[in-house]
Amino acid sequence: MKTNPLKGMRDYLPAEQRLRDYVQGQILETYRASGFERIGTPILEDMENLDKSDGGDNLNLIFKVMKRGDKLEKALAAGDEKGLSDMGLRYDLTLPLSRYYAANKDKLPSPFKVIQTDRVYRAERPQKGRLREFVQCDIDILGDASSNAEIELIDVTARALLKIGFSDFTVNINDRRMLRGMLTAMGFEPDTLDSVCISFDKLDKIGAEGVAAELTEKGCPESAVAALTEFLQKGDFSLEKVSALCPDPALGADLQRVINTVTELSGGKFDIAYCPSLVRGQGYYTGIVFEVTCKAFGGAVAGGGRYDEMVGKFIGQKVPAVGFSIGFERICGILMEQGFQVPADKPKMALLYQKDTEFGAVLRKAAELRDNYAVTVLPQAKKLGKQLGSLQEQGFACAAFAESNEVKNLAEHE
Amino acid sequence: MKTNPLKGMRDYLPAEQRLRDYVQGQILETYRASGFERIGTPILEDMENLDKSDGGDNLNLIFKVMKRGDKLEKALAAGDEKGLSDMGLRYDLTLPLSRYYAANKDKLPSPFKVIQTDRVYRAERPQKGRLREFVQCDIDILGDASSNAEIELIDVTARALLKIGFSDFTVNINDRRMLRGMLTAMGFEPDTLDSVCISFDKLDKIGAEGVAAELTEKGCPESAVAALTEFLQKGDFSLEKVSALCPDPALGADLQRVINTVTELSGGKFDIAYCPSLVRGQGYYTGIVFEVTCKAFGGAVAGGGRYDEMVGKFIGQKVPAVGFSIGFERICGILMEQGFQVPADKPKMALLYQKDTEFGAVLRKAAELRDNYAVTVLPQAKKLGKQLGSLQEQGFACAAFAESNEVKNLAEHE
Repeated sequence: MKTNPLKGMRDYLPAEQRLRDYVQGQILETYRASGFERIGTPILEDMENLDKSDGGDNLNLIFKVMKRGDKLEKALAAGDEKGLSDMGLRYDLTLPLSRYYAANKDKLPSPFKVIQTDRVYRAERPQKGRLREFVQCDIDILGDASSNAEIELIDVTARALLKIGFSDFTVNINDRRMLRGMLTAMGFEPDTLDSVCISFDKLDKIGAEGVAAELTEKGCPESAVAALTEFLQKGDFSLEKVSALCPDPALGADLQRVINTVTELSGGKFDIAYCPSLVRGQGYYTGIVFEVTCKAFGGAVAGGGRYDEMVGKFIGQKVPAVGFSIGFERICGILMEQGFQVPADKPKMALLYQKDTEFGAVLRKAAELRDNYAVTVLPQAKKLGKQLGSLQEQGFACAAFAESNEVKNLAEHE
Repeated sequence: MKTNPLKGMRDYLPAEQRLRDYVQGQILETYRASGFERIGTPILEDMENLDKSDGGDNLNLIFKVMKRGDKLEKALAAGDEKGLSDMGLRYDLTLPLSRYYAANKDKLPSPFKVIQTDRVYRAERPQKGRLREFVQCDIDILGDASSNAEIELIDVTARALLKIGFSDFTVNINDRRMLRGMLTAMGFEPDTLDSVCISFDKLDKIGAEGVAAELTEKGCPESAVAALTEFLQKGDFSLEKVSALCPDPALGADLQRVINTVTELSGGKFDIAYCPSLVRGQGYYTGIVFEVTCKAFGGAVAGGGRYDEMVGKFIGQKVPAVGFSIGFERICGILMEQGFQVPADKPKMALLYQKDTEFGAVLRKAAELRDNYAVTVLPQAKKLGKQLGSLQEQGFACAAFAESNEVKNLAEHE
């Protein structure tokens, strides 16, 4: 039998799991103190729901669960590949939340401030750092159309990151509608805007001329490319400038309010920066989007945005919604690399016993010692010195003995 | 789009999730204080591993995940139903643990005292109380061949149950080898023992004559049926009696030691009883088995046993192992029915604000109040009285206002 976990999935050793539980606990504590409430949804969703969910590329990465019994036979006999599966593993927590809200909204407060920390699945080509099973930590506010929801999510998420020891990070923010408004005004066709944004986002790498060349190759109108090139070459990517080029001035003003308020709330502990090219991958975002980057580590450690159309797909009635997701695996990976030590509640003690000692008495002694220690009961090895060395390596602070009152301090030998 | 969760799976409302998190937290705290360490394994396992895992009926209940890309095309073209899937959702936590131990044993202490609390999946015909996705809370000891491992697991599991408010429960215990030894001595064929045990277990329902009739119908030897009937009619199902009928007297003596030690450790807070017919469903158990029943509720709330052959399937070297699993869903269901209230860390406060109040100031005020309260920031409704009533129903202890120092106590109106 195969002993390794499946490709792209991981076993977690006790020390790793302890870190994961600690990080999740700290995040949950911050979220709960701000009145967010955790919910639970199944890992499996109806395949039709997943297919219709605007998940962008993620729709190609769904693990599908096979039908069972007669239904499977029927689909097989018909050679119907699509009909073989009726359920899929979710690729994010936003679709399940939208379905959940639609199913339970009469029992939920409005606005609904909700926590989800749970597993999601994507059949990615395995590579370093790309897991096929991973945990996301999301908070969402449903039912608040104002950008106060964005401000609160950024404030709470930033506090969660600070609490687990992250600092020196930047919240990058944009409003998709502003970017699209500017590009449309420049003369790009509405159905090419996503593609234009992707080229725009490469400015740092390929320069203004590179972007222009790419857009020309993509067949964009000459005048539009010229207008964008002029904008890029001038190099003024300030919110004022972009806002002036966008037909709706209210968008820029609102984004400025979000940035100002978050800046003031940050107390200088983190930065917030306008990033005109930020779009985020998911198809379902409708307005403001944001992501957290950390100078010391490439890539984003958290991201999110507004998705006002998603819940409406289930109930035919628009429900404004914003979400912010912490990249839990990334955070844990960085903390592991840094050798982060989870603070222990009580010191770890090994209570060693001889084979012929009455085991009930051993457990009674352990119970007494548990007022002050986390006590692991273990048979005493023949080579005590070697055993004590191994216990010390495992993080035990001391060893006690069932047959005496002696306590050996292991920490002092360090 | 469909709003309900999939058949046999559940959405958890905030109050349910709070209870689930609380129960899991209490169980984990008890387990960790005894030196057990949590690990993590993927929800998906290799399909071949699952197929070979001695899971009994559960093997028929596996949700299978379809292959992807070319491999799927190939299997489909070949009409190869078995070849369509390469992974499956795990049906328990014991197979993943065995695989995990085989893969990581060089990095793990011995004996290894391990916690798993996680989701498992079974494609059961949905019915009341039978979920297709549910959580199990397991502890296992790997690497201890003595029945001290059984004693410790029973002790720790019982303490976890007591901690979450369960009492008046009985740990039923048996040794499969003793039961099989007695039946073999009576003349039953070795390969019919499982079937004989099932009939034996119906004694309460169909009486000694019913059991005899069923065994005769199953084609068991007349003399064996006569010997068993005599035993059943005498009605002495004590450990002494069964032990006397079993060829290996050491088994009974060891079981007696487990019962005596646990009885003494229980301090009268729960019972432990010898149950000669107990076998437990899983095929992989090899010796002592146990389950916890609660007078007030039918069925078992926890169960487990020794499975000394399972890990060896992966590494070709026998590793003794015992596990005890708490039926998390059952426990949570009973506590919900009883109207159990999760103790709150800090009282819940709603901080209400007017639309035109500067939102940054609202969040700063909330941050100050969080020293003493879990503060939820909410827009003030036009009908304040109605809003306060609704907040009270949601469990808020008080409401404060962004624009004044007034605090309304909501709890006192109850």
